Amino acid sequence: MQGLMQDWPLLTHRIIDHAARIHGDREIVTRSVEGPIVRTTYAEMRKRALKVAQRLDREGIKLGDRVATIAWNTARHMETWYGIMGIGAVCHTVNPRLFPDQIAWIINHAQDRIVITDLTFIPVLEKIADNVPSVERYVVLTDKAHMPQTTLKNAVAYEDWIAEVDGDFKWKEFDENTAAAMCYTSGTTGDPKGVLYSHRSNVLHSLMANSGDALGATSKDTMLPVVPLFHANSWGIVFSAPAMGTKLVMPGPKLDGESVYELLSTEKVTYTAGVPTVWLMLLQHMEKNNLKLPDLKVVICGGSAMPRSMIKAFDDMGVEVRHAWGMTEMSPLGTVGALQSQFAQLKGDAKLDVLQMQGYAPFMVEMQITDDAGKELPWDGKTFGRLKVRGPAIAGAYYQVDKQILDENGYFDTGDVATIDKYGYMRITDRSKDVIKSGGEWISSIDLENLAVGHPQVAEAAVIGVFHPKWDERPLLIIQPKEGQTVTRDDILQYMDGKIAKWWMPDDVVFVDSIPHTATGKILKTALRDQFKDYSLPTAAA
Amino acid sequence: MQGLMQDWPLLTHRIIDHAARIHGDREIVTRSVEGPIVRTTYAEMRKRALKVAQRLDREGIKLGDRVATIAWNTARHMETWYGIMGIGAVCHTVNPRLFPDQIAWIINHAQDRIVITDLTFIPVLEKIADNVPSVERYVVLTDKAHMPQTTLKNAVAYEDWIAEVDGDFKWKEFDENTAAAMCYTSGTTGDPKGVLYSHRSNVLHSLMANSGDALGATSKDTMLPVVPLFHANSWGIVFSAPAMGTKLVMPGPKLDGESVYELLSTEKVTYTAGVPTVWLMLLQHMEKNNLKLPDLKVVICGGSAMPRSMIKAFDDMGVEVRHAWGMTEMSPLGTVGALQSQFAQLKGDAKLDVLQMQGYAPFMVEMQITDDAGKELPWDGKTFGRLKVRGPAIAGAYYQVDKQILDENGYFDTGDVATIDKYGYMRITDRSKDVIKSGGEWISSIDLENLAVGHPQVAEAAVIGVFHPKWDERPLLIIQPKEGQTVTRDDILQYMDGKIAKWWMPDDVVFVDSIPHTATGKILKTALRDQFKDYSLPTAAA
Repeated sequence: MQGLMQDWPLLTHRIIDHAARIHGDREIVTRSVEGPIVRTTYAEMRKRALKVAQRLDREGIKLGDRVATIAWNTARHMETWYGIMGIGAVCHTVNPRLFPDQIAWIINHAQDRIVITDLTFIPVLEKIADNVPSVERYVVLTDKAHMPQTTLKNAVAYEDWIAEVDGDFKWKEFDENTAAAMCYTSGTTGDPKGVLYSHRSNVLHSLMANSGDALGATSKDTMLPVVPLFHANSWGIVFSAPAMGTKLVMPGPKLDGESVYELLSTEKVTYTAGVPTVWLMLLQHMEKNNLKLPDLKVVICGGSAMPRSMIKAFDDMGVEVRHAWGMTEMSPLGTVGALQSQFAQLKGDAKLDVLQMQGYAPFMVEMQITDDAGKELPWDGKTFGRLKVRGPAIAGAYYQVDKQILDENGYFDTGDVATIDKYGYMRITDRSKDVIKSGGEWISSIDLENLAVGHPQVAEAAVIGVFHPKWDERPLLIIQPKEGQTVTRDDILQYMDGKIAKWWMPDDVVFVDSIPHTATGKILKTALRDQFKDYSLPTAAA
Repeated sequence: MQGLMQDWPLLTHRIIDHAARIHGDREIVTRSVEGPIVRTTYAEMRKRALKVAQRLDREGIKLGDRVATIAWNTARHMETWYGIMGIGAVCHTVNPRLFPDQIAWIINHAQDRIVITDLTFIPVLEKIADNVPSVERYVVLTDKAHMPQTTLKNAVAYEDWIAEVDGDFKWKEFDENTAAAMCYTSGTTGDPKGVLYSHRSNVLHSLMANSGDALGATSKDTMLPVVPLFHANSWGIVFSAPAMGTKLVMPGPKLDGESVYELLSTEKVTYTAGVPTVWLMLLQHMEKNNLKLPDLKVVICGGSAMPRSMIKAFDDMGVEVRHAWGMTEMSPLGTVGALQSQFAQLKGDAKLDVLQMQGYAPFMVEMQITDDAGKELPWDGKTFGRLKVRGPAIAGAYYQVDKQILDENGYFDTGDVATIDKYGYMRITDRSKDVIKSGGEWISSIDLENLAVGHPQVAEAAVIGVFHPKWDERPLLIIQPKEGQTVTRDDILQYMDGKIAKWWMPDDVVFVDSIPHTATGKILKTALRDQFKDYSLPTAAA
């Protein structure tokens, strides 16, 4: 028997409709790409999003067609999302930090018909324009006065382009499972893979984000998403903020400490979200100039693990730190580290211990840890295994990749290795391709690296598994000493001794001038594995 | 083009799964019907709900079969909900405060196969047992020691009944639009009408409730729902609390001021929800005994309008008051009166003015006010019209009633008359059947009644529209004076003069010994209209 409730599909444009209706005067403040700080409202944004929809419709963009955006966090960028999705087209966010060839590859794979971009990215797009034949026109997010000369095909200034229509337009109606947005993940190996979000998944994710223990901002809050719109939906904030009527502050292209501080301070921001690099720059700027942020309540930090010292710095300022973990494939929120009631009274190191974990899954994210055979492992905070996830805002397949990515229970393997404790708090211990499998037991490369960098003469450390005739794999520790410093194998091993289990101790230590990194700053372990693929451990000879 | 996200239907039992997994130790504290205060946890509740599911399955209860509950707010009652819904059966909550004949009518209409009930309600069920042939068995929410002699068919003590199975059972899988629960509304006219909730609507409603500006409790909060589970889903709290890991305190049968205060105080409750009558008893008890509730943060009040003096009393205590409005047909939340940012700094009367309105619609509730012809009216805070609503947790039809209840735009007419201001704050001004239609303009009977009861000699006032040859209808004011007091027509009219528009002034005033009421305490206007149906207004003769 079916329930008798109304058929009201979960469509993203209903969010901006709600914001315009109930929170119409609430502001979106932007540091524009042109320079000045500009202000608009949710009511105004909805009107302009409708013009985008109408203009795209006139351009012949149909249900399912892909429209790319390569742009900073601005109100203009945000309104194009609602405009694109509101006619059932797919908003494809492209990361401008990728290499030009990767950008071209992704645009070709998605077959984007229109590219909407900022002034900043015209040069890189001009470089690849000849290699992306699907693109019919480029729309530059600026006005006539700032529009430069460009060789880009049918290039037009955004303000001129939307001025061609009157905004007398209605959103299209379609099923909630219709594709709404697309974002490619680029690993260190293989081609980028497209995640295809639906209207339903975007709306459900925003509801999840707005619960008090996830992001949890309200209509009285002001949110500054430093995390880019091109990075996994800016953690869904362009949907969750208007759904609640939260005022938004968009940082545009300037993400340095001084610029972010200025906006946080002048706009009295209460919630902000971004990666550790940004917070490091902010904290350094604040310390140097003896600055305070009395209005700031919550900092959400994800993308990579937040150092303990940074958590402590915010905690000392009276700011609540919420560690978050997720993936493009998860829309992206997987866990958020709000304090559950049993931890609410913790202080000092005990509190930092909890805040340093990646947090727990909100309702609608189900997690498992398993061994290689798929057997579930206990949630004891110690045992670590492959982290798998299930939920309505988690990818079930990649765009045009004919490969099953879910296991027989419907779980997606995140590629991370983690522990989960009895309260559901998850801690990432490694990537599954980096974990060292020693005689059937797993050793976390990240834990060893974190320990080794604590040595005063070590600049950076990397751990990889190398072949061992008896144990299959054993850890090799690769050290980049601090400039002008010398340190020996025995120094390092002695330093580590007693701080970890005996059988976790690296079988050897080697020294390099420089540890290689990916474009996004992660250690390039594939290169290290290649470099040391024939390395013979001293223990192997025994 | 469809998105490529996982198929993860929104099913209510996934909420208790989540609570058990992530917030397994969090407590549900109950003042039991037997007397003592008892404690359980979400992990334990899930185990017992699975036993209920398994036991119902063994009883032959199938997808779509109706199982009734007639019971107080207790952990046992709550776990039966998850058990019933977890096999795709329909949990039919019956209001024990109805007349026995109405209860029988409702059970027959729903064709309930099993009735789960509290010790309290055995006598009334014994009275109607012969008239409800669909019921195969009665399960009494108690243990063997407390089980009384009863003539109820196949009666069994709940604890014995679930002890017959081992709990090794899996929830059934089905579509998210499957019926999950059912609740009948009983107006003053016509037969009761069944609202049939789906798993999807229950889950979406709980997500909506958990946003910061709706109910907004977190895993650090403790929630006491005074509002009964048999009253419109207890405002969804049995779903929203476990979804967040909020500790629950269930008041059982004792809703007097002293009992509610005791639980609020000893369990350090931070959130509570109920109707004004309950808060009146609580405030009187606290004042009389000079008591405080330092942990209480938020009181949510709905069911009927909260008097200004009550709002002030809580506000003076430092407790945030959120006025809520909704209907059984809306799952039930329609609006919640959290303060938006532009009101956050208000104090005194200006603050009370905002808090006294019914609040604004959260995302997923769309509202309109229209005239009788269906034309939309402006949101100016003054114009009032028929209040219509649309959303995924709002009824689209009644159970086995073959009548279209939505207008051509998919809106449901609430039967209320309201104003909405530019911020979306709604104020109920009347019921549409009670509003007086004078020459095409509307006059609020409730506004006139509220004004008239302000007169020191008036105990209660009712206003109805009576026939007028020129204006179609004009207001007649019916006054019940305070005992032993006398008051004249002119006294009243003079008192009202200048406080309302001239054309709103009642055309006549009559006095009665007693104004009739419904079972739930509302003025029975049908009886008054009947009594005064031939009343000739002095103005009609002119």
